[in-house]
Amino acid sequence: MSEPTPAVDALSRRKFFSGSAVLAGAGGLALGVGGGMAVAAAAAPGPLSDSERMAERATLTYPFYGEHQGGIDTPPQDHLVFTAFDVTALTAVELQLVLAKWSAAMAEMTAGSPVGKVQPEREQGIPVDTGEATDMGPQGLTLTLGFGPSLFDERFGLAKFKPADFADLPAMAGESLNPALTGGDLCIQACANDPQVAYHAVRNLARMARTAVKTRWTVLGFGRASAGANQATPRNLMGFKDGTRNVSGTTDLGEHVWAGAEAGQPWMVGGSYLVARKIHMLIETWDEDPIGDQQSIFGRTKKEGAPLSGSKEHDVPDFHAAAAGAPVIPADSHIALAAHENNNGTKILRRGYNFTDGLDSVGRLDAGLMFLSFQKSPEQFVTLQRKLGSSDRLNEYIRHVGSGVFAVPAGLPAAGSYYGKEFFA
Amino acid sequence: MSEPTPAVDALSRRKFFSGSAVLAGAGGLALGVGGGMAVAAAAAPGPLSDSERMAERATLTYPFYGEHQGGIDTPPQDHLVFTAFDVTALTAVELQLVLAKWSAAMAEMTAGSPVGKVQPEREQGIPVDTGEATDMGPQGLTLTLGFGPSLFDERFGLAKFKPADFADLPAMAGESLNPALTGGDLCIQACANDPQVAYHAVRNLARMARTAVKTRWTVLGFGRASAGANQATPRNLMGFKDGTRNVSGTTDLGEHVWAGAEAGQPWMVGGSYLVARKIHMLIETWDEDPIGDQQSIFGRTKKEGAPLSGSKEHDVPDFHAAAAGAPVIPADSHIALAAHENNNGTKILRRGYNFTDGLDSVGRLDAGLMFLSFQKSPEQFVTLQRKLGSSDRLNEYIRHVGSGVFAVPAGLPAAGSYYGKEFFA
Repeated sequence: MSEPTPAVDALSRRKFFSGSAVLAGAGGLALGVGGGMAVAAAAAPGPLSDSERMAERATLTYPFYGEHQGGIDTPPQDHLVFTAFDVTALTAVELQLVLAKWSAAMAEMTAGSPVGKVQPEREQGIPVDTGEATDMGPQGLTLTLGFGPSLFDERFGLAKFKPADFADLPAMAGESLNPALTGGDLCIQACANDPQVAYHAVRNLARMARTAVKTRWTVLGFGRASAGANQATPRNLMGFKDGTRNVSGTTDLGEHVWAGAEAGQPWMVGGSYLVARKIHMLIETWDEDPIGDQQSIFGRTKKEGAPLSGSKEHDVPDFHAAAAGAPVIPADSHIALAAHENNNGTKILRRGYNFTDGLDSVGRLDAGLMFLSFQKSPEQFVTLQRKLGSSDRLNEYIRHVGSGVFAVPAGLPAAGSYYGKEFFA
Repeated sequence: MSEPTPAVDALSRRKFFSGSAVLAGAGGLALGVGGGMAVAAAAAPGPLSDSERMAERATLTYPFYGEHQGGIDTPPQDHLVFTAFDVTALTAVELQLVLAKWSAAMAEMTAGSPVGKVQPEREQGIPVDTGEATDMGPQGLTLTLGFGPSLFDERFGLAKFKPADFADLPAMAGESLNPALTGGDLCIQACANDPQVAYHAVRNLARMARTAVKTRWTVLGFGRASAGANQATPRNLMGFKDGTRNVSGTTDLGEHVWAGAEAGQPWMVGGSYLVARKIHMLIETWDEDPIGDQQSIFGRTKKEGAPLSGSKEHDVPDFHAAAAGAPVIPADSHIALAAHENNNGTKILRRGYNFTDGLDSVGRLDAGLMFLSFQKSPEQFVTLQRKLGSSDRLNEYIRHVGSGVFAVPAGLPAAGSYYGKEFFA
């Protein structure tokens, strides 16, 4: 799932103009991180045009079939559309049909094709695909499907497929959940480097299932707020770098992210649990807090993102360092409370996005963090959030308003398979 | 205003790795359209890393000072934040202070600097800049300021500075305006290739003026829906290419976009009028319309974007072509009604963006087009919209829900000048 395929054709123009051929190296992104490169001598009449540059960005493709779903360990793209759905169908067969149609359409769109591949033109057919992403390319699109705990209730006879200990998250300190922004029988996390491609994907999945599912809540993320391996660390809307110490690497993923036999369900082996939290920031209040205080709340410097015990972003925080008898990194700072060193080694893979919904009902900025994390068990998130919710000084400036937990099945092996197929055997 | 400055330093890494040096050609975008290029032989150990690629995209800069404001004839960037403000200040001096502070901050942010340039660190100072765009670069940011008709009422003694015939748009057919999405004393159009940079700019302008202005309405555009010169034509959320026949070139701009002596106000010479219309699309209904009908409504093919009288997108529409006694391009199609050939030569410069606000109160997609246009006189828009509002078959699928018209002053000559300075002499 982590080896993307660049469309070599779309690179040929850059090869011609830049005098170099970009070749995908094993395990690296040909258009980004790592990878090998060969240089050919060539005359270069001009730089890439705007449309050529767009074409190049457009070609990044992640394979849809594989051991794990995309959108988990693949590097976070720039844009997110997250949507949770209620299943309104009355029969298991209707649900089965949705999951089969979705799986096929997800494969098509991930490859950069429209839904249904061939579209009618100049005729009286209803469009199969809504068309707004036509010719935009895959843009690194990943579509990640999850099942909410409520899907395994009595409606569709799926109780016996429910993973062990999979349930709605418990109530936790520091929450002000809005019921309209919680739960869901199904969810789709769509991520792409162009927002229109991500939006198009969710819109078309919702459309093809409109007689059987209803959108429950949706969040658009306009900028990623977590770093993947080898990515520069972005900033959240509080102005701090977010995701510096994220999970990466095969060992960490195996230990902390991929579900295994303990889930008690073969379909979850190679899957993961997705926790979604829509976190509203009290931005105007935060903005009036002095920088020194903001830094003690996070435990990091604002500009560099270094732990207060160090000087560089990637310095390992020293939670024992003390000055004048007090810890240099306050014990109630965000990074101290969340660190695996202080939580029996607990780690989660964060994949958050900044969001803004404009203004709230009293004219304040309605904005914050769409926190998304993947973990082997929802308990990992609960452990960390229980601690953060009760002690984190950040709580003065944030409210958790939306919440959901979803069992994300393993990847599909090949065309013809579909998510949840095991449920209907 | 149309010659951007790439940061040459940030290009040096690409130069090294790609074996080529990109040089800005006169009148062209070094990172995009046109421009000259020289090639140097160099060993290339690997492609650009993700952070290097981000750094390259980040460096595009449009000069802030010049004859015209940026964000009008400069090529549309990928992302928009549009915000209209009410002035809550009670005195002209407070308004003057806002305009002076805004002008200075707009210059700083356009250059990629934080507001206030130097930020306090590890101390008890309140942050001058909110920080979330730190180190992201200018990202081609343009900030375009406009004055609404209401600014020239009796509150600040500005009636004598009101341009001739500048007034709120008249009521027109096909409108369902929401008062919360109309008007405004001031507006800022922020456009950038990264949404966080655009958001940061508006947030910081609102913040520094919080005792004197209040945000009235705001729209985030997630994908541009108009082509500038040499740009590929993007698609609106109906799946059709938008902005194919847009105004471009010095002659057209002079004739149709830049205001002159006719405005009766020296500060408007070299300025323009901005019309903003938030247009909600009835997407579910549109999606069920057959492709053939969708094409007759627009007057263009969906996939290629060709006029129905031709075969390629940029074929000039032939409104006289007939088949079986009927026009090939229906007379009530969108392009026939809007074409300058059918409106005494009237043209407007469109600069629209797709938007989505998630779901509406009954769970339908709340999405559409944030239509923005610039013209020498608001009358140009009114002429076209009167015709479209009463005859356009598209009206079955769209609702104009937000509206504003703003007088956009000419560009500032140099540091020390500020928008509206003439009002307070």
